[in-house]
Amino acid sequence: MTRNEALFEFLQRMGDNTLILGHRISEWCGMAPVLEEDIALSNTALDFIGQTQFWLGYAGEVEGEGRDADRLAFHRDAWDFRNVLLVEMPNGDFGQTIMRQFLFDAWHSIYIARLLKSSDTRVAEIAEKASKEIAYHLERSADTVVALGDGTEESHARMQKALDYLYPYVGEMFLSDEVDVDMAAAGVAPDPSSLREEYDALVQKVLDEATLSVPGNRFAQKGGKTGTMHTEHLGHLLCSMQWLQRAYPDGNW
Amino acid sequence: MTRNEALFEFLQRMGDNTLILGHRISEWCGMAPVLEEDIALSNTALDFIGQTQFWLGYAGEVEGEGRDADRLAFHRDAWDFRNVLLVEMPNGDFGQTIMRQFLFDAWHSIYIARLLKSSDTRVAEIAEKASKEIAYHLERSADTVVALGDGTEESHARMQKALDYLYPYVGEMFLSDEVDVDMAAAGVAPDPSSLREEYDALVQKVLDEATLSVPGNRFAQKGGKTGTMHTEHLGHLLCSMQWLQRAYPDGNW
Repeated sequence: MTRNEALFEFLQRMGDNTLILGHRISEWCGMAPVLEEDIALSNTALDFIGQTQFWLGYAGEVEGEGRDADRLAFHRDAWDFRNVLLVEMPNGDFGQTIMRQFLFDAWHSIYIARLLKSSDTRVAEIAEKASKEIAYHLERSADTVVALGDGTEESHARMQKALDYLYPYVGEMFLSDEVDVDMAAAGVAPDPSSLREEYDALVQKVLDEATLSVPGNRFAQKGGKTGTMHTEHLGHLLCSMQWLQRAYPDGNW
Repeated sequence: MTRNEALFEFLQRMGDNTLILGHRISEWCGMAPVLEEDIALSNTALDFIGQTQFWLGYAGEVEGEGRDADRLAFHRDAWDFRNVLLVEMPNGDFGQTIMRQFLFDAWHSIYIARLLKSSDTRVAEIAEKASKEIAYHLERSADTVVALGDGTEESHARMQKALDYLYPYVGEMFLSDEVDVDMAAAGVAPDPSSLREEYDALVQKVLDEATLSVPGNRFAQKGGKTGTMHTEHLGHLLCSMQWLQRAYPDGNW
């Protein structure tokens, strides 16, 4: 794998995480439990889609085959997506959506802080733009996890259930492979395995406050960021997300 | 509207009912509560898809614009579908699926019996082929409605809930419009409004045995068979059903 190929992979991973999670959250639009949350989730979705535009736009340039962000988002098939499995998991109830968000935001905020110092100026610039949004996402999801975890008996039980369900998808964010090693060697991005300790401390602090128990089992599902094996959920998500561009290939506003 | 245009509409209505209900049932494949039901539902789905092949194949010939059954099934958009709303309703639990099936099978069996004497030989031939399958579908769904309705407290409650949910979609099957009047005048198909009494008697008998109460309110949702207004569910169903042909337009086995 050349440096350029590794960079293309890395950029797709960043962009696919924000694209898929952004789309997932957008599924709440008009359906959230209260108006305030509906707007907040839609805004978060827009932040993610905006970040996707940068990551996948740059990815297309690096690839050099004329694909832009739209082309990559709407015309790749499931096996070509590079997002971690966590972000493609279904919304479930509002609590599960917020727990997924928190587990991702915590990783995202730590990872993006490292990218601010990337040796690749474009990467550093995108990280700079995204980091304020991401800090705000984390603040919001952490607060809501605490409010619901340390809330009523019902909300506590649902948050614990969501955590137990989603925790097996946390580990994948810290698995390193050839791409990560190459990006770390080039100073483009951190080796994700080096960030686990910081993540665990952050997550533990918030979950303690939320009176929730971190599952002891560290077993990690994997295959998303490498594209080896996505869950069935991704295909269904892409069906909806890519429908318009598939049915009307050269459509314009 | 010419006779030929009315015939094209009529054939699409027949074919879209079986296509959409066939696809809905196929969603159970590998997921039904017991193996026997899984196979039975998959077989029913196959019967419906087989009938679709005939109805939409003939529809394409009548239209005379070179569209075959596949083209009509996979490349029309939601607003061009002519199925009644009942068949696009979501599967829900197994009980809801079976109740939807029974409410449709009862109509289907009465309607198809009239088509055996159609003045259009092709229509009569298709009805002849389909009628044995349809009689068996009705026997099966009626038996299961009785078994579950007159079953445990839980299964009874679920079946009543399913009936209450689906009953507003029954009336549409008996609404007549310009197409129906024309087809009846030509002796191609019966006027659906003339079949309600026979349907009500059949359904009442089965639901009595199932200890279920027919809702008193006759309000009927409509818009499916005319294509004026489908439910949101149809779009999601088409997303999945048409995905392959949309993503890979000229794909072959």
